[in-house]
Amino acid sequence: MYGPGDVRLEYRPDPKIEQPTDAVIRLSATCVCGSDLWPYRGQDTFGWPAPMGHEYAGVVEEVGDEVATVKPGDFVIGSFFASDNTCEICQAGYQSRCIHAEPVGALGTQAEYARIPLADGTLVTTPGMPGPDLVPSFLAASDVLGTGWFAAVAAEAGPGKTVAVVGDGAAGLLGVLAARQLGAERIIAMSRHEPRQALARQFGATDIVTERGDDGVAVIKDLTNGYGAHSVIEAVGTQESMMQAIRATRAGGHVGYVGVSHDVTLPGNELFFSGVHLHGGPAPVRRFLPDLIDLIWRREIDPGKVFDLTLPLDQAAAAYQAMDQRRAIKSLLQP
Amino acid sequence: MYGPGDVRLEYRPDPKIEQPTDAVIRLSATCVCGSDLWPYRGQDTFGWPAPMGHEYAGVVEEVGDEVATVKPGDFVIGSFFASDNTCEICQAGYQSRCIHAEPVGALGTQAEYARIPLADGTLVTTPGMPGPDLVPSFLAASDVLGTGWFAAVAAEAGPGKTVAVVGDGAAGLLGVLAARQLGAERIIAMSRHEPRQALARQFGATDIVTERGDDGVAVIKDLTNGYGAHSVIEAVGTQESMMQAIRATRAGGHVGYVGVSHDVTLPGNELFFSGVHLHGGPAPVRRFLPDLIDLIWRREIDPGKVFDLTLPLDQAAAAYQAMDQRRAIKSLLQP
Repeated sequence: MYGPGDVRLEYRPDPKIEQPTDAVIRLSATCVCGSDLWPYRGQDTFGWPAPMGHEYAGVVEEVGDEVATVKPGDFVIGSFFASDNTCEICQAGYQSRCIHAEPVGALGTQAEYARIPLADGTLVTTPGMPGPDLVPSFLAASDVLGTGWFAAVAAEAGPGKTVAVVGDGAAGLLGVLAARQLGAERIIAMSRHEPRQALARQFGATDIVTERGDDGVAVIKDLTNGYGAHSVIEAVGTQESMMQAIRATRAGGHVGYVGVSHDVTLPGNELFFSGVHLHGGPAPVRRFLPDLIDLIWRREIDPGKVFDLTLPLDQAAAAYQAMDQRRAIKSLLQP
Repeated sequence: MYGPGDVRLEYRPDPKIEQPTDAVIRLSATCVCGSDLWPYRGQDTFGWPAPMGHEYAGVVEEVGDEVATVKPGDFVIGSFFASDNTCEICQAGYQSRCIHAEPVGALGTQAEYARIPLADGTLVTTPGMPGPDLVPSFLAASDVLGTGWFAAVAAEAGPGKTVAVVGDGAAGLLGVLAARQLGAERIIAMSRHEPRQALARQFGATDIVTERGDDGVAVIKDLTNGYGAHSVIEAVGTQESMMQAIRATRAGGHVGYVGVSHDVTLPGNELFFSGVHLHGGPAPVRRFLPDLIDLIWRREIDPGKVFDLTLPLDQAAAAYQAMDQRRAIKSLLQP
């Protein structure tokens, strides 16, 4: 990305092993993240030009001398933060905040090849080589599924719970899927876009609410005897969406927020008297990958459905544009 | 209170039963809360004059027709929010946010008698009539112990955990006591006042940190191999104390905040990348009262030690002044 709205395909040297803990993978598929739209829309500033992409699934090409758990030929998935998976933070399940975390996005996975640091701690192998039909779902596990899943876990979605989901992007939609898998009783998707409403229902939403902001909050309260939802997933990252999520949650309930915060400031007094639990941040996708891979491999879930546009890598600019204009939920790129 | 710094004793009519769910109690003791200092310092504005006090322990004088679980002569303790204890919010343990919650403070318990609404849901009886030596501890259970306890529970203090406590007022000190009772391995009290440090150690603190703000955060990190504490109790309510608490917590750790928020705004981006859990608000003291009463009755804990000044009710002005000037940790008033 050379600047807001300016995405170009460029030929760059193939990545090499730089550290003995690195792996180089050949991407089977990559994609555009909702968070890539922040810089695309000029709402994040990078040092331009910046390599883009942090989602990846593919085949190991080469590994460094110290890599023990993956080998060339393995099909692997990893998270957008490389992690050692051994420090106290990783062991507690917060690999995205590993004390040795490295952002994979800085390297750019919207590419044919990518260098993945800390391969042993970061990459998880599939039980075998997946057919092409499973690749989109494994790619989704790399970020957006893991993010939606973390949001649902952070919101403590589960049996007997009413879960509301703020945000109908791919992360929010997969938050619906996760809440359903976690056994939530009722799942309310907040969306005014028909194709997204339809996918939310496929993923397990029981109710659709089209109102937003405080009107949306009022509808959630109406649907929950005035109490508010037990669990609310926030998957946007704006002031309005955060306040909508907090206000839609009952006292003692849980907000799981995964939308990357942009110009959000939370009023302490309102938060205090809300009595909610607030948890979120960059999803520790690595924590969930073994389970997610298993669910996908056994075809219990089909998160790859969020990709409603598939383009060759050299049409990356069109892939961004379609998501920016909300013509596509999520764009898959074929290297 | 007639305005900031202006506390007066006034003769008012004794409270009567107004609703069939009310009880009237004769206070055995009452006290000044850290949160009473906000209006005293002009940082909260009330409609002056305002009756003051929301902490209470005493003997039931009279009950309304519908009250079934307490009777005249019972020694009772309740929380600063009356609650029905039957709604979904109460049943989930958030009685301070009960959909029928009534603030007892609006009635004023710095008095000889007080009317307590929703008596069945609010008041908890002791196993028998306590001796005078136990009264301060039971009074503490009404708010400040319950608040410190909730903060420790919200911060998930427990075995194997390092707990840091921001705030050396009575709530923070009793957060130390709660963390110890909950089995925390290491408890770091942040205080620069020697008498409070001494009480923190009596209550179970293993370390004292005198630095504040980001310097304090750096010391906590040093004490925890760079990770930060697992659990941090925030018991002040200012911008500095909230940020100190969030920054002292490791990713994936828990902040329990009970200091009533004053002019606090939390930066969304920093909170997002902190990866902490945030939970707090007005403590649902009612949830903990049965256990706290049991611990006090069996003399397992002595939270009444936070009262280092005891004055007759007619010297309430001096009681406020001593706390405002930090000459007293907490002032008990004898009606």
